[in-house]
Amino acid sequence: MKKLINNPNLVVEDMIKGMIAAHPEYLKKSDAGNILIRKDSPIKGKVALVSGGGSGHEPAHAGYVGKGMLDAAVAGAVFTSPTPDQVYEAIKAVDGGEGVLLIVKNYSGDIMNFDMAKDMADMDGIKVESVVVNDDVAVENSTYTAGRRGIAGTVFVHKIAGAKAEQGANLTEVKRIAEKVVENVRSMGMALSSCIVPAAGKANFILSENEVEIGMGIHGEPGTHREAIKTADEITEHLVSKILEDMSVEKGTEVAVMVNGLSGTPLMELYIVNKKVSEMLSEREIKIHKTFVGEFMTSLEMAGCSITILKLDDELKTLLNEKADTPALKVY
Amino acid sequence: MKKLINNPNLVVEDMIKGMIAAHPEYLKKSDAGNILIRKDSPIKGKVALVSGGGSGHEPAHAGYVGKGMLDAAVAGAVFTSPTPDQVYEAIKAVDGGEGVLLIVKNYSGDIMNFDMAKDMADMDGIKVESVVVNDDVAVENSTYTAGRRGIAGTVFVHKIAGAKAEQGANLTEVKRIAEKVVENVRSMGMALSSCIVPAAGKANFILSENEVEIGMGIHGEPGTHREAIKTADEITEHLVSKILEDMSVEKGTEVAVMVNGLSGTPLMELYIVNKKVSEMLSEREIKIHKTFVGEFMTSLEMAGCSITILKLDDELKTLLNEKADTPALKVY
Repeated sequence: MKKLINNPNLVVEDMIKGMIAAHPEYLKKSDAGNILIRKDSPIKGKVALVSGGGSGHEPAHAGYVGKGMLDAAVAGAVFTSPTPDQVYEAIKAVDGGEGVLLIVKNYSGDIMNFDMAKDMADMDGIKVESVVVNDDVAVENSTYTAGRRGIAGTVFVHKIAGAKAEQGANLTEVKRIAEKVVENVRSMGMALSSCIVPAAGKANFILSENEVEIGMGIHGEPGTHREAIKTADEITEHLVSKILEDMSVEKGTEVAVMVNGLSGTPLMELYIVNKKVSEMLSEREIKIHKTFVGEFMTSLEMAGCSITILKLDDELKTLLNEKADTPALKVY
Repeated sequence: MKKLINNPNLVVEDMIKGMIAAHPEYLKKSDAGNILIRKDSPIKGKVALVSGGGSGHEPAHAGYVGKGMLDAAVAGAVFTSPTPDQVYEAIKAVDGGEGVLLIVKNYSGDIMNFDMAKDMADMDGIKVESVVVNDDVAVENSTYTAGRRGIAGTVFVHKIAGAKAEQGANLTEVKRIAEKVVENVRSMGMALSSCIVPAAGKANFILSENEVEIGMGIHGEPGTHREAIKTADEITEHLVSKILEDMSVEKGTEVAVMVNGLSGTPLMELYIVNKKVSEMLSEREIKIHKTFVGEFMTSLEMAGCSITILKLDDELKTLLNEKADTPALKVY
């Protein structure tokens, strides 16, 4: 295992120190644990957004803490749900009196622990609601998930619900818009190589020389199948087709696109994938309003990518366009 | 070779199509070849900035085309200098009457071809100046370079000279500030794995299971030595020490820091490196004004990172803080 780390058991702590050192204008660390909090939080009169999950998906989620997105991100151990206590501490730290929305990727451990935190906060009289993101169309019921997994589409939930909260909407409204994003967002990914959990020290799965895995999860959960690597166009064709089979997108509809690198794949290749995505949408007369290409929801050093399509209406489009200022995503 | 590509000989063309599709609000493609041009260029009354080089270093350089940075980026084949014709076409496309500054990384091929382009443009009566970036302290005289190599520090030249040009400074002034950045910026990198040039189909160099290369270049040029991998703290200590041996930075000086991923290394590990960078600078009472952590100057899928330190004075600091709006770097 070759990694730029000091101690496999301290990767999250060391990373957080490096994040705080890099982004003191955005982030502060909670004294109660591995929780990154928006610098100016709690904000009176604003609904607060909390997300998080296992570490190893950076910039998710702490990279999205800032104006127009999250108020706090809770960092579990690598690929491990944060504890209920951690989430509870995050809720208490950011509540500005208008309540807190939890944005949870659909993994059983996360669901359970965020729910328990919600119950703990309820007892304190803090209004807490939650939404579960399950955008991955690849498989139903996976290693750590009942139903569909939540992956890169989560970033669109952060962005759009974050914009709504920034406008002063109440908790019911912020939750409604977050659920609307969840209803309209679909993703699917593929891997060229595995990742290595630092504490395990060996690959989560093994792909042979010319093999790729289609539809795997961001922790290396099995996908739909493995196959010999094809061209970028063919792979993209498959992923986008699966998304569009799952969610009908009519001619003339506007969408946002995210081509997300899982970490090991160079930006050059992500743009090559985006070429085919844009061609396919153009052939179907689907209008691309905005495209994001980069690393938004990674999987340690895994090579591969996911493609996300979000159907927009005027409301979602307006909120997507609103300003956001975070370490990992800036929209102006 | 596992890559998300269609044809090793078309990676640059496909990538550019994907970039234009992703960023139509920032970029347009020149009809004269693989040149990405700022959407609103040429801009009357503004000195134009042109950079470029071999492809495979994305987001460098097309990701830095936009307000407050570059007016055009010229994309050569992978790890291959753009031709003089290409650079000449870029100069003609962006000149708004106030002249053009070429920002060239110090590789012999780039120097020669950018110089020839400058001569061609001179004959057309276009004022052209150039600066050469040579921030890599690792080695003197490398595979493709006489003197020191130019690496991630180049992005600071784009940013600061771009801000100066945006303010309406003349060509002499923009060149002066670019040279001031070059004088005050130093970098050094290390690799955990090699990259694979698509057309070659095999690794540029081979590192064994637990081996890293210290001081290698962004095309896999040899570094100072190979060694068994150490902790992130020890590796960072070595890189930062080499930089600070080369450039004296007195107590109380303000600096900008860039921890640059070469592509295969996860953001988590870059933040772990940044932890130690910030500790070392703090121990030396050097003030960190701004830190950039991410992928700014990559090397295909190479795993590893480089560290860049830029000494600031009030002039450089003000220009670094100025707005920039490009696909890969946004400062507000």
